[in-house]
Amino acid sequence: MSPLSDTNEEGLNSKPKTLSSVITGGGSGMRIIVPLQGVVQGRGGLVLGSVIPCALFYFLQLYLKRNRSYSDSDSPSASSASSPSTSSGDLVNLSRSHSRTVLSPRGSSGPVLVSTRASNILRGESAYHLGLRKCKEDEYDPETNPDGVIQLGLAENTLTLDLISEWIYVNKGNFLAGNVEEDKRQTKLSVNGLTTYQPFDGIMDLKIVFASFMNQIMPGLVSFCPTQFVFTSGATSAIEILSFCLADAKNAFLIPTPYYPGFDCDIKWRTGVELIPVPCRSGDDFKLNIPDLETSYNQAKKRGLKIQAVLISNPSNPVGNVLDRESMYDLLAFVREKNIHLISDEVFAGSTHGSDGFVSMAEILETEEDIDRSRVHIIYGLSKDLCLPGWRVGAIYSFNENVLAVATKLARFTAVSAPTQRLLVTLLSDINFIEKFHKTNKARLKKMYNLFVTGLKDIGIECCKSSVSGFYCWADMSKFLRSYSERGEMELWDKLLTVAKINVTPGSSCHCIEHGWFRCCFTTLSEDDIPVVMNRIKKVIESISTH
Amino acid sequence: MSPLSDTNEEGLNSKPKTLSSVITGGGSGMRIIVPLQGVVQGRGGLVLGSVIPCALFYFLQLYLKRNRSYSDSDSPSASSASSPSTSSGDLVNLSRSHSRTVLSPRGSSGPVLVSTRASNILRGESAYHLGLRKCKEDEYDPETNPDGVIQLGLAENTLTLDLISEWIYVNKGNFLAGNVEEDKRQTKLSVNGLTTYQPFDGIMDLKIVFASFMNQIMPGLVSFCPTQFVFTSGATSAIEILSFCLADAKNAFLIPTPYYPGFDCDIKWRTGVELIPVPCRSGDDFKLNIPDLETSYNQAKKRGLKIQAVLISNPSNPVGNVLDRESMYDLLAFVREKNIHLISDEVFAGSTHGSDGFVSMAEILETEEDIDRSRVHIIYGLSKDLCLPGWRVGAIYSFNENVLAVATKLARFTAVSAPTQRLLVTLLSDINFIEKFHKTNKARLKKMYNLFVTGLKDIGIECCKSSVSGFYCWADMSKFLRSYSERGEMELWDKLLTVAKINVTPGSSCHCIEHGWFRCCFTTLSEDDIPVVMNRIKKVIESISTH
Repeated sequence: MSPLSDTNEEGLNSKPKTLSSVITGGGSGMRIIVPLQGVVQGRGGLVLGSVIPCALFYFLQLYLKRNRSYSDSDSPSASSASSPSTSSGDLVNLSRSHSRTVLSPRGSSGPVLVSTRASNILRGESAYHLGLRKCKEDEYDPETNPDGVIQLGLAENTLTLDLISEWIYVNKGNFLAGNVEEDKRQTKLSVNGLTTYQPFDGIMDLKIVFASFMNQIMPGLVSFCPTQFVFTSGATSAIEILSFCLADAKNAFLIPTPYYPGFDCDIKWRTGVELIPVPCRSGDDFKLNIPDLETSYNQAKKRGLKIQAVLISNPSNPVGNVLDRESMYDLLAFVREKNIHLISDEVFAGSTHGSDGFVSMAEILETEEDIDRSRVHIIYGLSKDLCLPGWRVGAIYSFNENVLAVATKLARFTAVSAPTQRLLVTLLSDINFIEKFHKTNKARLKKMYNLFVTGLKDIGIECCKSSVSGFYCWADMSKFLRSYSERGEMELWDKLLTVAKINVTPGSSCHCIEHGWFRCCFTTLSEDDIPVVMNRIKKVIESISTH
Repeated sequence: MSPLSDTNEEGLNSKPKTLSSVITGGGSGMRIIVPLQGVVQGRGGLVLGSVIPCALFYFLQLYLKRNRSYSDSDSPSASSASSPSTSSGDLVNLSRSHSRTVLSPRGSSGPVLVSTRASNILRGESAYHLGLRKCKEDEYDPETNPDGVIQLGLAENTLTLDLISEWIYVNKGNFLAGNVEEDKRQTKLSVNGLTTYQPFDGIMDLKIVFASFMNQIMPGLVSFCPTQFVFTSGATSAIEILSFCLADAKNAFLIPTPYYPGFDCDIKWRTGVELIPVPCRSGDDFKLNIPDLETSYNQAKKRGLKIQAVLISNPSNPVGNVLDRESMYDLLAFVREKNIHLISDEVFAGSTHGSDGFVSMAEILETEEDIDRSRVHIIYGLSKDLCLPGWRVGAIYSFNENVLAVATKLARFTAVSAPTQRLLVTLLSDINFIEKFHKTNKARLKKMYNLFVTGLKDIGIECCKSSVSGFYCWADMSKFLRSYSERGEMELWDKLLTVAKINVTPGSSCHCIEHGWFRCCFTTLSEDDIPVVMNRIKKVIESISTH
């Protein structure tokens, strides 16, 4: 129990009890007034003289608290339980006061207590999540809601959904039909592959086509092996299970910053693993360097933390750059020297648009003999490279038999449903479609990236030059900050969200140590949206410049 | 770190260090002999005299331990890491020694370490899981593998799969086609509902039809509310998330025994919540009584455990009986008095075959005004009542806003994929089909139950009379135990698995305090299989009787 919840749980209860026993000890409710008169007239005892002001103060607090919590949220529904208002200035305070309504005291008319760890999850909300939610509540649509919030905060790609749509139109029902054909021959086997218990870590058919798919769309020579996969309900779940396997609660991972803000939920919430930032800087084009890794490692060790892994995203989210081969060898040497693991999150591997080549950690391990593969683990999924986040398909790809064995057992909590697996087997087997989709998607990604970055440049905003992949650019708006600080960054973010009605992800949500950087996702926009976005941003930065 | 793993990881390393420093302190390796001579000849000091026997004993232990672990596993592959041999006599020892190969020490040629909690998951395997695995490796098929193991250990129902198969045949592609129609009108919205990010806790369309479905198939007057659902990847995940929300690690739930063996994984593995058994007895038809609950509660409190909830399965798994209304009111009064939660696992709610009526906790809460709903949570899913375990659809149904808010956030780890959700919306909307399916399924369930229980009776095995639901009967084979003990029960279980080639779940896996009870699932059998099953069991029990 945290000190805060303890105070709520017992402090608030015990006070009224003491009070009422003192008060009613005198006889009826009317006596409440009498001792007060007694105190005023100098006839009251020491006990009543101190208890009554305390009680009054307590009821005053209670009254203020209740009024405050009602004004925060109009309806106490599940979705609004963690809904601070839009104004970012009050962000921290608001989420705090909400957590108090969550932790309503025992025995009161409020709900019975949830666990401390559950309360912690409700407490507070990062600007990243707040922006996503605000946008959802009032989403821009050129026709139906032209004044709505434009979403540049979600790394989702709809640029090539038309091809997926076409494929579904042509193939609809094929994956189900396959089973029903069987059905005609033998009732008992009928829909078995579709309805009955399947291996939680994924059916072998899927593992085989999934490995081929990765070999097909990843640049370079890779050869993923079907038996090294454990599928999960999205990459979110893959990273959580992997964290559980590699580290105990209060152990830590080193992670270069800026990093994907979702990791704070994915890794910390349930596994209790800590993330130790390793700062990367604009001067190095936000590239990781090993001496910084070494420094963070040593500092963490001094604090008594047990470092269990280095976690990188390659291609990087939010910067969009990729690791060069030399850095990858250095990283492998580092984790070997420290005897720790290396997690390579490669969910954007097939979504490159620049000329600098992405290299999968799997390729490095294949070409080098003298590497201890058992400490290397890759995270992958179909949300990014196949534009299918709604399908919730993630994968752990590991070279470590124990990790695979545990992850297979934990997959019971997060299995991909059989219809989706069967649908995927059909889709990923269609290598001509995959080829066409991948080529088209990369070309559209490149075009949109160039349009968007040029648009920003035209209004005076430069982006990180080393970006070659992902659905976003990493934009430097530091010169528009009124103060070079996190506060200054949040002020600009708030203006963009509430005035320009543009939701972007501030660098602080990504733990960037430099201020004024923003991740802007452009892959749910149409080309027509770009001038709208630029005009909106322009107005805000002009108002700042002339202020 | 558990004490055991500490010994493995550091103890084994540190002991030789101390020892060698003592030994080499004298000079060269040859000196090892000299002090021994010294001790023998009476010239040795007290220190050496005690260190050397200890060292010898230590190396002897080390030698024995290594030899033992090698003989256990021929290949240290992932799949065999937790594969004890079939012989149940060595079950406990085998799983223990296996865990040592998993925890290979740092710096050795073995793989880099996984976390302690991950190792704990690999350590050991209950008879329930071992039986399931053994059966999978050599599964009975009347035509292709007539000597294989017959599966009575998995609560899966294929009795009415033909209807599901027929429905899919008629409706194939409908759920996808709906989106493609839209596609013709507007490319951007096209396959959005099928491919893009959807609410992790489930789309509202599904919540609405799911609530109707539960209202339709649950006996009695219930009215489930769509906004109180959070969907998860199977009920397995629903119970885990709920446990996380209601209790912190090392808190505990009270749970009547015998209970579903999967709870030990679902609840303990990752949430760290402990399960305190509340024994039910054959004399009471395995019905829960409140004084026993009270006793277990008080004993646990004395041990310093914080009890956060009572977890019941109603209908019960493995017994198949249901709670009567009076017991339900008593339970509600109990949790209110203790100010704790009540979790009602109702996954078999629609799979009753007897005349005694199941009553959902939701019905009780609806009909009574004076109940604090916020402490009551229901677990449900489609694996049992709709014969769709492969679809991985579970649900938390809660009356507590905070629990719903946290579960909604945690659903990011375990979301049901959009194609499956869309497919389900189509299926559950077809209320005529659901009606027909449900009626047929209950009739077939009843018929199979009667056939199976009669078959057992004919060979001298009685089942618990109060069973009115589920895919199993709860069979009393205590009179065939060679010794009335857990060991005796495991001997019989092993004979059934290896000689009769019948996999059943022993009561000990369900934490039953009485010996000789077995859960036998009959819903994946055909009627023709029943005589085969009975003959096989008969041979084993006859061999015991004549032994």
